[in-house]
Amino acid sequence: MSRLHEQGRIVAAPEHFLDASQVAAVQAGRRDFLRGALLAAASAATAARAGGDPAILELPLQTRSLGLPVAARPYGMPSKYEANLQRRQSPGLTQVPQASVSFTPLQGLFGIITPSGLHFERHHQGWMDTDPREHRLMVMGLVREARVYTMDDLLRLPSVSRIHFLECGANTGMEWGNVAVPTVQYTHGMLGCCEYTGVRLSTLLDDCGFDRAKGKYILAEGADGASLTRTIPMERALDDAIVAWAMNGEMLRPENGYPLRLVVPGVQGVSWVKWLRRLEVGDEPFGTREETLHYVDLMPDGMLRQYTPIQECKSVITTPSGGQRLMGKGFYNVSGLAWSGRGTVKRVDVSTDGGRNWRTARLEQPVLSKALTRFNIDWTWDGSPAILQSRAMDETGYVQPKIAQLRAVRGSRSIYHNNAIQSWKVDATGEVSNVEVG
Amino acid sequence: MSRLHEQGRIVAAPEHFLDASQVAAVQAGRRDFLRGALLAAASAATAARAGGDPAILELPLQTRSLGLPVAARPYGMPSKYEANLQRRQSPGLTQVPQASVSFTPLQGLFGIITPSGLHFERHHQGWMDTDPREHRLMVMGLVREARVYTMDDLLRLPSVSRIHFLECGANTGMEWGNVAVPTVQYTHGMLGCCEYTGVRLSTLLDDCGFDRAKGKYILAEGADGASLTRTIPMERALDDAIVAWAMNGEMLRPENGYPLRLVVPGVQGVSWVKWLRRLEVGDEPFGTREETLHYVDLMPDGMLRQYTPIQECKSVITTPSGGQRLMGKGFYNVSGLAWSGRGTVKRVDVSTDGGRNWRTARLEQPVLSKALTRFNIDWTWDGSPAILQSRAMDETGYVQPKIAQLRAVRGSRSIYHNNAIQSWKVDATGEVSNVEVG
Repeated sequence: MSRLHEQGRIVAAPEHFLDASQVAAVQAGRRDFLRGALLAAASAATAARAGGDPAILELPLQTRSLGLPVAARPYGMPSKYEANLQRRQSPGLTQVPQASVSFTPLQGLFGIITPSGLHFERHHQGWMDTDPREHRLMVMGLVREARVYTMDDLLRLPSVSRIHFLECGANTGMEWGNVAVPTVQYTHGMLGCCEYTGVRLSTLLDDCGFDRAKGKYILAEGADGASLTRTIPMERALDDAIVAWAMNGEMLRPENGYPLRLVVPGVQGVSWVKWLRRLEVGDEPFGTREETLHYVDLMPDGMLRQYTPIQECKSVITTPSGGQRLMGKGFYNVSGLAWSGRGTVKRVDVSTDGGRNWRTARLEQPVLSKALTRFNIDWTWDGSPAILQSRAMDETGYVQPKIAQLRAVRGSRSIYHNNAIQSWKVDATGEVSNVEVG
Repeated sequence: MSRLHEQGRIVAAPEHFLDASQVAAVQAGRRDFLRGALLAAASAATAARAGGDPAILELPLQTRSLGLPVAARPYGMPSKYEANLQRRQSPGLTQVPQASVSFTPLQGLFGIITPSGLHFERHHQGWMDTDPREHRLMVMGLVREARVYTMDDLLRLPSVSRIHFLECGANTGMEWGNVAVPTVQYTHGMLGCCEYTGVRLSTLLDDCGFDRAKGKYILAEGADGASLTRTIPMERALDDAIVAWAMNGEMLRPENGYPLRLVVPGVQGVSWVKWLRRLEVGDEPFGTREETLHYVDLMPDGMLRQYTPIQECKSVITTPSGGQRLMGKGFYNVSGLAWSGRGTVKRVDVSTDGGRNWRTARLEQPVLSKALTRFNIDWTWDGSPAILQSRAMDETGYVQPKIAQLRAVRGSRSIYHNNAIQSWKVDATGEVSNVEVG
């Protein structure tokens, strides 16, 4: 019956009532019937269990038992019943799994915080569990004093904590050409939102006395096999960039850059350099491989757009979404995520008829700048086919475009920066699938 | 050298410069010196390694290697170098570990989000990993229709997400009589702050048509061996209480009530009933064991205060804190947490001289109602003994009291609701310890 542990969480039988005799008993005021039933012990439970149906009046096993002790797991893990909710690699997407992606299972998540253990990964040459005692960060270039920081040094500096989304520039990239993948994990799962703690990049630059006249760009380099490098413009570095060691309250996870990564709010993930080992202040963009050859947008005229780091306003419905199934007519909570690299989300509208009519969704608190925002909206499904869409607007007034509007400007040969409205089709059986609606 | 992996994170040698010859090289503009050094390979690295000191100019292993693939861990875990950061039971605190506490390691955490795997546990008869397909929630009593909800039913209802702190009423209880425990993990570690998602309790009560004239209290019962029960006043139930299934973006962890727990913002943890199985609407408090015999405050006159659920405004410095050691004079970032069960934290002041002088700390964003707030303040330690304290004020104007002020009203035989200012003594060697300052 229950689909709770399959692809999605949309789910089960519509009726949530007692059976008729139980309702009658309650309405007649015989509350002792229920009390008695709740206190009934093994015989009834066994009988019900023998009937093959989970007995609603059975005392649960836990109530009849001594449970497990505290600190049985000094570091806790999800329930074994949630084991199916994993980050997953898209098979065949890349030649080797060290230069690949694993996707966040958005279809099974709630709120805005992405659990660190389920946060997507994008590596260019794999990851390692770096010994923080040996890790160093060098700040050099157009500075008065080049410096090398240990982690101990960094942890003594003034720290800040901020909640921000992190989206790979290639997220939703498979949708440029066609409806390539079935689930929201693969269409939008290069996305996460965490609380980061670290020292402001501007504090570090001040500490080294950077050249305010000539220093216009910063090169960030990671300690991976790819020595991944990206240029950060100085105004962004001085704004809200963080050299972070913590994520969701604890030290970064190895796959996410432990012990140090760059956080560049609103900017595509490739600039959030992991295992950060070097910052160099320069007077012009460094023109690295990952900003001249990769992470560029191939335009209809054959030209390449470079240095387009901002993740524009975007949203997606995560429940229900592709691969899930509605189990019957009736009420559903339609839920999703919205975000903007330009600031806060102002409004999210939801359509259940492919964009003809729109209703405004509820935004959950907190609504933070350059962070995911959770939206929810009521929907009563009448059992007929439907197309679900969400459309976000940010504080600048920018409205998330249709895919046809994006293609009119950018063509269909892009990989990056697809922030189009996503459409999920619900068929008469309740199956949800990925469709394109121009 | 590094203390990063011991009790605390305070930390290492004060100097964070290159050695003199390197600085000279840089200042002379010979940037190639450093570039060359960064690119130098095994020979120099080996030599440096043989010298017994982590070589700052050595290319790190990860840079010279193919790392691990994506999704090597479908559900990620912290670095092996963080294995010492655990929730821990206080030995001998209770007779059996099924009716005990494990504490959150606040000394090693950052920001406001508590990692689910490190969230404290307080069980009355242990925990189990409940099968959500078999879990039921019954709503009964003074309602038009008693109902039994499956998890599938609940997940279809309108949901909300909120970030709130959760503190056991007995947190800091050992400090009533004396300075009993050495570290902030044990003095304040029955504390966490997570994002919870679920259905508002008011929505469920409306769904069952509760009796608005007579229904004044709600009994919440958990499916543990203790059948833990607590009374919730109706006005609180209708305000911001949530029947939650998710915590920090994913389904609750088994130790934290999977698949369903009550969230009662601002109220002591015992009312956040785990493995929630039954809600009963009544016309008077239910007077259960856990609110008449336990979780009561023994006053100086021998009387017991009952029904004191609100966690008043409180704060604590987590870094540096007891058991940590400052490794030398110089600059430190002093960091801590503040919270109030009555709303938002308005201000946090910090003293480094045992309360004679106070400076106002920076509050990190977001500052949310009934949530932890992270504060930070700069401090340059001159090497002489110091006493660090923090003092929080909430939006109602209430100011966190000294322990002497609390004892003047409540005596010293209490267990619960100790929200006094905490004092950490730094001695001349940099050792930090728990002291009492009246």
